[in-house]
Amino acid sequence: MTLEGLQQLLKKYKYDAFLVTHDNLFLGQDIRDDENKIYELCGFSGSAGTLIVFQDRAVLLVDGRYEIQAALEVKPGKTEVHVAGLQKWLQEQNFTGKQIKFAYNPWCHAIQEIERLQNLFPQISFIPAPDALTGSQQSSVEAAAFEHDIEFAGLSRDEKLAQTSRFLQAHKLEGYLFTAADDVSWLLNLRSDALPHTPILRAYALLYADSRIEVFADNLDLLNLHPLKELGKYLKPFRKGSLGLDKHKTPQQIFNLLGDENSFRSYPSPVAELKAVKNPVELAGMTNAHRRDGEALVNFLFWLENNYRRISELDVVEKLHDFRSRQPLFYSESFATIAASGPHGAIVHYQPDLATNRPLDNNSMLLLDSGAQYFDGTTDVTRTIALGQPSPAMIRDFTLVLKAHITLSSTLFPAGTSGAALDAVTRRPLWQEGKNYNHGTGHGVGCFLNVHENPPSVSPRGYDELKPGMITSVEPGCYIENSYGIRIENLAVVEKMPGDGLPLYGFRPLTLVPLDKRLIDKYLLSAEELLWLNNYHQTVWEQLSSRLAPDEKAWLQQACAPL
Amino acid sequence: MTLEGLQQLLKKYKYDAFLVTHDNLFLGQDIRDDENKIYELCGFSGSAGTLIVFQDRAVLLVDGRYEIQAALEVKPGKTEVHVAGLQKWLQEQNFTGKQIKFAYNPWCHAIQEIERLQNLFPQISFIPAPDALTGSQQSSVEAAAFEHDIEFAGLSRDEKLAQTSRFLQAHKLEGYLFTAADDVSWLLNLRSDALPHTPILRAYALLYADSRIEVFADNLDLLNLHPLKELGKYLKPFRKGSLGLDKHKTPQQIFNLLGDENSFRSYPSPVAELKAVKNPVELAGMTNAHRRDGEALVNFLFWLENNYRRISELDVVEKLHDFRSRQPLFYSESFATIAASGPHGAIVHYQPDLATNRPLDNNSMLLLDSGAQYFDGTTDVTRTIALGQPSPAMIRDFTLVLKAHITLSSTLFPAGTSGAALDAVTRRPLWQEGKNYNHGTGHGVGCFLNVHENPPSVSPRGYDELKPGMITSVEPGCYIENSYGIRIENLAVVEKMPGDGLPLYGFRPLTLVPLDKRLIDKYLLSAEELLWLNNYHQTVWEQLSSRLAPDEKAWLQQACAPL
Repeated sequence: MTLEGLQQLLKKYKYDAFLVTHDNLFLGQDIRDDENKIYELCGFSGSAGTLIVFQDRAVLLVDGRYEIQAALEVKPGKTEVHVAGLQKWLQEQNFTGKQIKFAYNPWCHAIQEIERLQNLFPQISFIPAPDALTGSQQSSVEAAAFEHDIEFAGLSRDEKLAQTSRFLQAHKLEGYLFTAADDVSWLLNLRSDALPHTPILRAYALLYADSRIEVFADNLDLLNLHPLKELGKYLKPFRKGSLGLDKHKTPQQIFNLLGDENSFRSYPSPVAELKAVKNPVELAGMTNAHRRDGEALVNFLFWLENNYRRISELDVVEKLHDFRSRQPLFYSESFATIAASGPHGAIVHYQPDLATNRPLDNNSMLLLDSGAQYFDGTTDVTRTIALGQPSPAMIRDFTLVLKAHITLSSTLFPAGTSGAALDAVTRRPLWQEGKNYNHGTGHGVGCFLNVHENPPSVSPRGYDELKPGMITSVEPGCYIENSYGIRIENLAVVEKMPGDGLPLYGFRPLTLVPLDKRLIDKYLLSAEELLWLNNYHQTVWEQLSSRLAPDEKAWLQQACAPL
Repeated sequence: MTLEGLQQLLKKYKYDAFLVTHDNLFLGQDIRDDENKIYELCGFSGSAGTLIVFQDRAVLLVDGRYEIQAALEVKPGKTEVHVAGLQKWLQEQNFTGKQIKFAYNPWCHAIQEIERLQNLFPQISFIPAPDALTGSQQSSVEAAAFEHDIEFAGLSRDEKLAQTSRFLQAHKLEGYLFTAADDVSWLLNLRSDALPHTPILRAYALLYADSRIEVFADNLDLLNLHPLKELGKYLKPFRKGSLGLDKHKTPQQIFNLLGDENSFRSYPSPVAELKAVKNPVELAGMTNAHRRDGEALVNFLFWLENNYRRISELDVVEKLHDFRSRQPLFYSESFATIAASGPHGAIVHYQPDLATNRPLDNNSMLLLDSGAQYFDGTTDVTRTIALGQPSPAMIRDFTLVLKAHITLSSTLFPAGTSGAALDAVTRRPLWQEGKNYNHGTGHGVGCFLNVHENPPSVSPRGYDELKPGMITSVEPGCYIENSYGIRIENLAVVEKMPGDGLPLYGFRPLTLVPLDKRLIDKYLLSAEELLWLNNYHQTVWEQLSSRLAPDEKAWLQQACAPL
């Protein structure tokens, strides 16, 4: 649909505006390019934002990261760009006089979100839009489902259904509706090829207390599947308080499909935590996948050292893909590789393309953030690599980021500690030097699932506690605009530490890739920090050295020698 | 009312149970002893807990702090004691079959709390109890109101009303209902003698967008006051969305008094933040009050050094009161003094009385947590003091707590940092050694108001950010059961640090009392920590020395000499 076409429909249906988000019916999960309604309407390709289409204009709201990109991408004269959240922007408008009508796609906003907006803005009526405005809910490209084998999943589908239905019994629920695609994928041990980097099965699932389950989706090749339009028929029979769902993450449309508005009770998805706390088979798979991924990275780093003078960012992307794809059980990359040369490193979400591609510079740094989906696990690793002779400022800032990285990696913490708490612990060494980074410290990672998975979240808004068996990234950074960017990212698993006394948890790194010692000023590290670094490198050497070619092995031995 | 009397009424009115909390109609604020319904019904005197009275039994739910005390205090055979929260305990009960009826006092539970309970437990009907069950809402002892002078308040009542009503105008509200007594006290520059340690005016206030205000309370000597029973008449006229209140902190009874259940919108109290961010006059008052309080503490510490061998905890309480009450502008203590000798220090909420009073032991420590209300400010300080020769374990643990104290006191942090973030930063040095403390790190403090004021809250659940002008305590601790307790508490004000770059905030200590160097192992401190300590002692010396007697001055010089 074009912006003008949508504006014609707004006039026809007498709505003042239509709210468009970057979501599809699986709120908060990746979307396909052909599902990106904001891009379709105004040309903005970023991964977050809200477009408000009025009858005679359109307003695109983005966060600070996307200010420049949005201004470049939107068609001039048709869409205004503002850096603001929806709530803030609406509060600044002086809507007076008569009631205003805002239509929205009820599949793309959570129940709680609409409740909150309606409470904040009584002068606006938020109205679910008819199909003519919203268009179809899923890509018309049919996705193929496939089994996620028990040798990687660790628990059978029947065991998972039985485990999850115990939650329903304990809370006296007759059913629970799962609308997050990764929850459904985990619960059913199914995956699909719908997305390029994330093998999730995009479907809803309705679980009954007796472990029966019904699955709903369109354009998905799977046995015993119901089309989405049948969902209402299955939701209608639930009586007062007998259906569980998470109103913070379930589309408003579900509320509209209920037979009785009091038929649901809101609980966080019981699968979310089961999925976040990896079982022993998943942990073994993640550990093995990281060893293979580390080998691919060492192959690459050795190659880079000998070739960086004559290559570009896109060559880095291609070569790294080559090395990874030779590893057993490789399925895909887990996101588009960020290979940022020199000043590009300061653009946190930079991905090279033909228009921006840049040669690697001598006497600078390469920021390389990449990962892969293997059938037994998912990886995500960032290394910042010196090319030629780094400057004293680069060395000082890299060492500060390393201190932050080691601080979290070596922190012991009691049960109940939240991601927000650990986020601050990580940042303190940077704060003390007047530095910070404008992104979270760590995100959960799925097992052959989303590379960004909740919980856990190590960020200022990460209220959930970290528990043994959870996996998180540890990725502090430092970004100097127009000069360089630094990020050091490992994935790590939360483990209970041995010992009597107060029970404490700590992190075991999964990622096995050496850190560039040419960027480290050892005199800025404390004795404990230096010990952590040398121990980490010793582990990398022990885990990776046996299967490398002789020249790569010699290189790794140097890279992992103690400082 | 007796437990048996209440149980008779439950049978008469056909309720299965009645929920009793430690709150009165000013949720979360201190209560008078004669308002403590839990004590009246079952004899438990602790400051937190829930009593569920059934027709034939009663269940007292307390947290871990109160397990022993509750078991000692409740009348045997009539009340069971459980360590659990209300939600957890109710979830463990197997309420099946017919709907159960729980009565509650609608003045003593927030709107949000009832909404949450009703959502969690659909098989229980939560029903506002009639007056016959709840009894009266305020003490029958009449309190006298008095003015809080502009020389201490800094802003006139009219200025505060104008400032606050701008919030109403910005949010298109016709009125805002304040039900927190300290909000109303701050807004009106009024105080009262209702409570022994907290000079709050206990009243509700309804502010209109044009700055008019109506005040409601019973048993309060104040001009132009409406009795509480008139409140409904003033709330009824508000139409849809035109009344602001905070549903997390406003009693359910208010909801019952509205003409239309949609007439309110929930916003955090606009006074809460104005009150938390101290104005320049309040900051000057707090600073001055702390200098006088520091003098009183130095008087006391000098006296203690020469007398500790022949005194008890109650002597400490009395002598400290003597010294404080000689200071200008002294009004009262800000809470009952915690003077805990030896093993009593490990009981976090210990207060000596005739039954528990203990002599001070040689070769042990005294944990002394105390504060005062001065007309220009409120203080709260904890010092742990060596008596005779402390053991190596005492010195090691004191130094670890000091490291935690200095870590927070010297932390720089950017705008937006939450109390939860700073809480974790404080605890890390203790976590690394397998230690922790079972209380928050810091609480806000009012200015001649509550000694515990929200925001800010430096604790695992402190989601609000700390802003310049806010005052918080910094009070990490370490408690070894049956042996000793250590806590080091200063109040500190958040200030913006000078400099270009990233804007950073930090803490300036208000409390001026030396730390006991006999308990410090300087070799466990980093160079930065030692520098902070010596600088702090230098400031204490400079601020306090001029007005002390010669022998006290000599003592302070020694106490503040650099380590």
